[in-house]
Parts: sequence; C-alpha cells; structure tokens
Amino acid sequence: MNRGELLYEGKAKKLFRTEDPDVVRVVYKDDATAFDGKKKGHLPGKGEMNNRISAFFFRYLAEKGVDNHFVRRLSPTEQLVRRVRILPLEVVVRNRAAGSLAKRLGLEEGTSLPRPVVEFYYKNDELGDPLVNEDHIAALQLASPDQLEEMKHIALRVNGLLKELMEERGVILVDFKLEFGLDREGRLLLADEISPDTCRFWDARTEEKLDKDRFRRDLGGVVEAYREIWRRLGGEIRD
Amino acid sequence: MNRGELLYEGKAKKLFRTEDPDVVRVVYKDDATAFDGKKKGHLPGKGEMNNRISAFFFRYLAEKGVDNHFVRRLSPTEQLVRRVRILPLEVVVRNRAAGSLAKRLGLEEGTSLPRPVVEFYYKNDELGDPLVNEDHIAALQLASPDQLEEMKHIALRVNGLLKELMEERGVILVDFKLEFGLDREGRLLLADEISPDTCRFWDARTEEKLDKDRFRRDLGGVVEAYREIWRRLGGEIRD
Ligand SMILES: Nc1ncnc2c1ncn2[C@@H]1O[C@H](COP(=O)(O)OP(=O)(O)O)[C@@H](O)[C@H]1O
Ligand SMILES: Nc1ncnc2c1ncn2[C@@H]1O[C@H](COP(=O)(O)OP(=O)(O)O)[C@@H](O)[C@H]1O
Ligand SMILES: [Mg+2]
Ligand SMILES: [Mg+2]
Repeated sequence: MNRGELLYEGKAKKLFRTEDPDVVRVVYKDDATAFDGKKKGHLPGKGEMNNRISAFFFRYLAEKGVDNHFVRRLSPTEQLVRRVRILPLEVVVRNRAAGSLAKRLGLEEGTSLPRPVVEFYYKNDELGDPLVNEDHIAALQLASPDQLEEMKHIALRVNGLLKELMEERGVILVDFKLEFGLDREGRLLLADEISPDTCRFWDARTEEKLDKDRFRRDLGGVVEAYREIWRRLGGEIRD
Repeated sequence: MNRGELLYEGKAKKLFRTEDPDVVRVVYKDDATAFDGKKKGHLPGKGEMNNRISAFFFRYLAEKGVDNHFVRRLSPTEQLVRRVRILPLEVVVRNRAAGSLAKRLGLEEGTSLPRPVVEFYYKNDELGDPLVNEDHIAALQLASPDQLEEMKHIALRVNGLLKELMEERGVILVDFKLEFGLDREGRLLLADEISPDTCRFWDARTEEKLDKDRFRRDLGGVVEAYREIWRRLGGEIRD
C-alpha cells in the first residue's frame, strides 16, 4: 500500500491520505492519554486491540443498518475509513452512571439509569470538552437541529445494538462516546472509533472494569482487559 | 399582620407562614452570597430594592398573561406570594454570553447570541448547581417532559417581555434565572424572585453593570446600581 501523507496525528490515532481522496488510512497507536492530556502512557498492544475491536463493531453496525465510515481493516493496527469532516461534538450515551455523570448528578458509580441518557460535549481541548445543550449547539452552529436529532437517533440505535451484543458476551455496556462527520455530499456519518478507549465495559458477573478506566485509575492490566474484550467478541490474537 | 412561623431561611430571603396555608410572606434580606456561598456580604438597602423590583416585574408579567406566584407587596421589604413546591431547577435565559456561559463556550463576555439560549441547572448546593440536559432531568425525575416544555416556553416569553421593557429604559437584559414551583393542584407557576440578584442588567449606553456582578467582582456601588434599576422602572425611593 502506497504510504500517503500524514493528515492528522491525534492522541490515539494517525490519519493518512490514500490515493482515494474520500478514503483515509487510520493507524491506531499504542499511546494513551487522560484528563485533558495531563496523564500520558504507552501501552504496547493497545493499538492492535482497538483497531480490531473498532473494525468489528463498525462492521457489525453496518450489517444492522447503521451506516458508518468503516471500509476495511488493512493490518493489525490499520484500517481504511471514509474521510469526513468531523463535527466538533462528542455524543455520549449512558446506561449507568459513571465518571463525570456520577460526579455531576451525585449518583453512585454503577447506578442504573431508568432510560439511556444522551449527552453532547463540545470537542474543544482548550475548554476541557464542556457539556453543552441543544441551544448552545445552535448558538455556536456546531450542528443543525436536524443533524442533532439524527445523531441522537443513531446513538440510541447503536446503544441498543451494542448493549445487546455485549450482554450476550457477559459484558455490561455502561456508556460510550461517538463522533460523527459529514462526507463530501454533506451526509452525516458515524465515524472515529468504538473501542475500550471510548466505551465503559464491565464484566457482567464481577463488574470488573474492562476499559480505559483501568488506565485512568491506575488499576493495571489495561491491555489485558482490552484483549479480554476482543476475546469475548470471538477474536483471536493474530492476523 | 400576624407574624407566622419561619418556614425557610435562604441566602437572600426568608419565608413565613401566613393564616392562609396557600400564601407565604417573603422577607427580602440585605445579605448577599456568591460562588456557592464562599463569598458573603451585607448590603443595607438591597432587600428593599429587590422586593420592589421583583414585585414590579411579577405584576408586569401577570398583566401580560404570565401567571406567577406574586400576590401583593406588604412593606418595603416584604411581599405575599402563593406557596408552591419549588422544582429543583434553575432556568436560565441568555441573550448575550456572560459569566459561566462565556467561560463554558469560550465566548467573550457580551457576545450577542443569535437566539436566546435556555439552560437548566440542577439546584443542588452540594453539587454546585451543575448544568443538566433534558435526559438528566428525566433520569433524576426533576420535572416531567411536559413541565420542561412549559418552563422553556414561559422562560422565553418572560425574556421577550422583560427584554423589551428594559430596552425602553435603556437597559440591556443580558441574562436571568427563573424558578418554578407546583401549587397544591400541581399547576406549574413561575415563582421566587426577578431582581438584580437574579438578572444581569447592563446600561445600554455605557454597558456598565447594574446587577449582582458588582458584588461578585468587587466593583462597588452595588445597592446604588440596584437603585438605578428601580429608578429606570419609574420607582421612587420610599413607600
Ligand atoms: N472518518 C474520519 N475522517 C476524518 N477524520 C476522522 C475520521 N474518523 C475520526 N477522525 C478524526 O481523526 C482524529 C483521530 O485521532 P484521535 O487520536 O482519536 O484524535 P483526538 O486526539 O483528537 O481524539 C480525531 O480528531 C477524529 O475526530
Ligand atoms: N412561592 C414560593 N413558595 C415556596 N417557596 C418559594 C417560593 N418562591 C421562592 N421559594 C423558595 O424560597 C427560597 C427563597 O430564598 P432564597 O434566599 O432565594 O433561597 P436560596 O438560598 O435557596 O436561593 C428558595 O429556596 C426558593 O426556591
Ligand atoms: Mg479521539
Ligand atoms: Mg435564591
């Protein structure tokens, strides 16, 4: 594969141009950051697990009718995706209170929510990714009201599908974060990644954390937990 | 007037029982607090100004068809209001970015918003009155979806009325906070107070602050600014 120009290097992934202007190559890195980049780590093997898990989820969602940016996996750490202009919003769906929601509402970590809660965060490192409501999004023109409704709808559909899938594998889907973008024609498309970096997964029996919280909270066994998720999805640990 | 039992003493007001179980007497105090009670002050004359200004606004809104808790003013610092069960939400309407919104969205103080922005804050001192969205409100059952829609509708109507009223008096209504309650029959009613403690008012010509930000930011002349608002409303400084 012709190695195209680096378009963007983020905290967890690199994006490279390909011969097709509408397709980019994503390289999943072994780096981890948390708390607005204040905590940093290098976790050999994480990139491969996230690339495999993300590819798995995107393929699964596409099969179930949720269009997304995924094209195909290229190698253990690389995948091709359709290039979009990412909307500066993080769309979070929560089934249980954890992390910032537990703190915001004064709920004990793990409290089941009566219905899934959808939140939008303004993707802006300088501002610390603040929670925003629909009027804030309209005022800053971060997305149109139609796009907002569509993102909420897709996010809840993704939640329904992944919650059930993980349940069958003995894993609780506590919450997750999605990103969306617009393709050349202005169509909204689910993008970025879906992995233990962007989801909270708990073992259904022990409630052991199998996600990035192991890194955030210095629990150790981070990549081992990501491998466990991959194993639960039926994955094998080689190409 | 028979002095009834103290029902509640808040940061800015005291509530007393009256002979009528559906009516309470509100005494506006001269105390001021800010930053979750970390900053405290005593401002002689503030209670009288807020009582008069609040009574004026509530009467004006009632005339324009916005039902609210106000019954009548009793004295320079007291008014009778209908007793409600306050919903634990602060409903904020903003015409320009200021205070926490300017900070949250990285906007310069005073930036005009393309349309009024409505926000809900969970009234909870321990949690620091966090911003919440409609799903949070539903999850915590702080208000029903219908009540939420009604509060938004009333808040925007209040904004339209007070913005115009103040504009005619050479004052910019930057933002304000409302509280709502349920009466004995479960009807939603606009309550609490509308005063320079709960609104941001700027002189239209000089953009001088004529509100509680003078206290928060140690600008001095706090009660003088409140008196100026009362004067602009046509008030005289005696009973
Ligand atoms: N299909 C796509 N097209 C263009 N950009 C994308 C696509 N999917 C994800 N991105 C963006 O690429 C970057 C991925 O790198 P990442 O390391 O996650 O970045 P960040 O540090 O900003 O989270 C993010 O900015 C993400 O929004
Ligand atoms: N009509 C009403 N009936 C009952 N309670 C009210 C009514 N109007 C306002 N309140 C409540 O009375 C208290 C007023 O006191 P205040 O000093 O503003 O309190 P706080 O310190 O909680 O802001 C507030 O808790 C407010 O919600
Ligand atoms: Mg990212
Ligand atoms: Mg108050």
